[in-house]
Amino acid sequence: MNTIGELIEDTDLAQLCKLSRVARALNAAGHAPATSGNYSLRSKTQPGAVLISESGIDKSRFTEENFLTVDMETGLPGPCYPPKKPSAETAIHLAIYRATSAGCVLHSHLLEALLFADLYPAQAAIQVSGLELLKGFAGITTHRALITIPCFENTQDIEPFARALPPHLRGEDPIFGFILRDHGLYTWGAGVDDAKRHLEVFEYLFRYSLARRGRYQ
Amino acid sequence: MNTIGELIEDTDLAQLCKLSRVARALNAAGHAPATSGNYSLRSKTQPGAVLISESGIDKSRFTEENFLTVDMETGLPGPCYPPKKPSAETAIHLAIYRATSAGCVLHSHLLEALLFADLYPAQAAIQVSGLELLKGFAGITTHRALITIPCFENTQDIEPFARALPPHLRGEDPIFGFILRDHGLYTWGAGVDDAKRHLEVFEYLFRYSLARRGRYQ
Amino acid sequence: MNTIGELIEDTDLAQLCKLSRVARALNAAGHAPATSGNYSLRSKTQPGAVLISESGIDKSRFTEENFLTVDMETGLPGPCYPPKKPSAETAIHLAIYRATSAGCVLHSHLLEALLFADLYPAQAAIQVSGLELLKGFAGITTHRALITIPCFENTQDIEPFARALPPHLRGEDPIFGFILRDHGLYTWGAGVDDAKRHLEVFEYLFRYSLARRGRYQ
Amino acid sequence: MNTIGELIEDTDLAQLCKLSRVARALNAAGHAPATSGNYSLRSKTQPGAVLISESGIDKSRFTEENFLTVDMETGLPGPCYPPKKPSAETAIHLAIYRATSAGCVLHSHLLEALLFADLYPAQAAIQVSGLELLKGFAGITTHRALITIPCFENTQDIEPFARALPPHLRGEDPIFGFILRDHGLYTWGAGVDDAKRHLEVFEYLFRYSLARRGRYQ
Repeated sequence: MNTIGELIEDTDLAQLCKLSRVARALNAAGHAPATSGNYSLRSKTQPGAVLISESGIDKSRFTEENFLTVDMETGLPGPCYPPKKPSAETAIHLAIYRATSAGCVLHSHLLEALLFADLYPAQAAIQVSGLELLKGFAGITTHRALITIPCFENTQDIEPFARALPPHLRGEDPIFGFILRDHGLYTWGAGVDDAKRHLEVFEYLFRYSLARRGRYQ
Repeated sequence: MNTIGELIEDTDLAQLCKLSRVARALNAAGHAPATSGNYSLRSKTQPGAVLISESGIDKSRFTEENFLTVDMETGLPGPCYPPKKPSAETAIHLAIYRATSAGCVLHSHLLEALLFADLYPAQAAIQVSGLELLKGFAGITTHRALITIPCFENTQDIEPFARALPPHLRGEDPIFGFILRDHGLYTWGAGVDDAKRHLEVFEYLFRYSLARRGRYQ
Repeated sequence: MNTIGELIEDTDLAQLCKLSRVARALNAAGHAPATSGNYSLRSKTQPGAVLISESGIDKSRFTEENFLTVDMETGLPGPCYPPKKPSAETAIHLAIYRATSAGCVLHSHLLEALLFADLYPAQAAIQVSGLELLKGFAGITTHRALITIPCFENTQDIEPFARALPPHLRGEDPIFGFILRDHGLYTWGAGVDDAKRHLEVFEYLFRYSLARRGRYQ
Repeated sequence: MNTIGELIEDTDLAQLCKLSRVARALNAAGHAPATSGNYSLRSKTQPGAVLISESGIDKSRFTEENFLTVDMETGLPGPCYPPKKPSAETAIHLAIYRATSAGCVLHSHLLEALLFADLYPAQAAIQVSGLELLKGFAGITTHRALITIPCFENTQDIEPFARALPPHLRGEDPIFGFILRDHGLYTWGAGVDDAKRHLEVFEYLFRYSLARRGRYQ
């Protein structure tokens, strides 16, 4: 049996350890109930490789050993004994890496993401502005910036969804994440720190919007 | 005085330790205020035996020593010096073990379980569907699955309630738990991990439903 | 300088340590913001003595050294160098010890206590019933029990308030605590465990009542 | 590279360590999502110097090494290798130190501060009274005291805002903090303990007011 540390280089391993620590903290804060949630990194040492969390782990016990390597184009797992099953939503992570310069992708089941999208039931995207904390998104320098959050209906057909995703990740306004209705939020950033910070902005934005509409928590 | 470790085999003891740890975490998350909540395991080494939590323990201090053995058919306690008093709701646990293949039963006083049932005041059962996280229930593979949650009026007559329970635990749609109104939730699973995961799904479902009805937290 | 351990006997000291631990946990759960909250024990070794928390301590740092002895009848502090200032609400604690058999008194600023009382703005007492968790109150064996919660207007005139308090602590229905409007809750029990358990019942009851009235956090 | 401990005297260093600890606790309680929040101390050993937190630090990892010295009049950073960038809102901290006797300033992005101000959309200041916990503000001895909370529109033009601030910090009623709408709260006190206590009073006041208006969190 190979530990993940034997299969990847130290640069990637350090980031996996950091991301695992973030994942455990996110779990404690309600982002990953019932083994939900999945996380990934773009490898900095293996071109075309992504490190993705395995399926079905209780995130209170999540560590760097719960990752495996997959090929960014084919989605096929790299060497790993005993074999681990990559997250059922791996294809969505790979689509994000192909369509953006993201180095880290986080998928949260935060209840407020679902409730926020419910405030705008018929919209394919939600536009937000006016909060100082939006400056937590990379490159945003004023609370007056407009941010777009695409919203999709939930599906169990992950592959076609992932194939159709890329054009929705580019728009006139900056996009830092999208919502799958009744499912959860995807967000990403240049690295673990950026992705975590973006998730914190989204959580705050969702809570603020819900409270102002009197429909919360 | 016998410790629980002297009275049961290591296979069961390891699961009790795991369940105790879960119980302390559930307490911290509001599932067991004021010494409420009770927990049990079906013994893997003693056929016909159930390990049930003793009555009246502050769950912030709950350990494997707060369990005792009871006979699944008679409810009579096994050897235990000094004697411990089994949970006043032991009969409900035993009825669940007889009616299902559960290996672990959790009883929570989570406030949201009561509030959720209050949304449906005249119903003997509540049917839910549409949330991705329902896939956290064992064997559920799509958010479109229909789940049934039986709801009963609260009672202090535990024995007759327990005798009448079994037929309510089988239905057309899968059942992973039931609510006692103004009292709490029972849920179960093949083992500690499954039961814990099911409880997390219920909690999320309750919060979501309450928030969407604007009656929360 | 005398530590509290040099001034009282071990029986009392052990209870102070336990109560201090409870106080720190209550602080973390929102019961004692901004140095509010005060706690006391009836001495088991010095007849007529009460151990009361000193004034103005940040409860995140509260220890057994933040208690001093006062005389139950006169309220005068016992020996203590350097002198500590007893809680400004000491007289209320003493009135409770004189009027009841309480061994421990807890005063919480829990926001939900204020909001709960606000649901009944013109009432001198609130009667509750119907929750399974009411069985967490000592001696209550059914959710159908009636519990009375006296409610008083807030005041800075602690001494006259304390003198007038005793008759309000006895009634037809059992009383386990009272609310000072826009201020907080007093509760008590035979010892630290009972008082803590009663506080947990109150917190749950308040949250439930507020949520059912749609006025909550 | 100089550590902060080599650049300032022990008296200041001890306070920085205390403030850093408070900052990490505030982060855990939701006051500083997405690297927001900033904190400062008036130096007790260097006249005219303020110790201000550097820009952009994840507050879960905040330590005394994340401070640097700035001149209270000019805002220019003191010696520091490698150079750190002072908080973008340093000018606001300095204006508070010049206009008041504060020894410590805390800036929080607590969601409830924004929501509270939203209850009073057209007001330049909000007056509060009637809560026992208001006595947590320094010098306040009765819940009947009147407290004023100035409210300002958010801006990215920090320097002119800071220059215009001082007259708003003095009024008929005591002022312990102000709100920047859709941004956050500034509060201060004689030292770290006072500032922390004031922040706890504000948080409680905001939650109470929001819950009573049925618009909460």
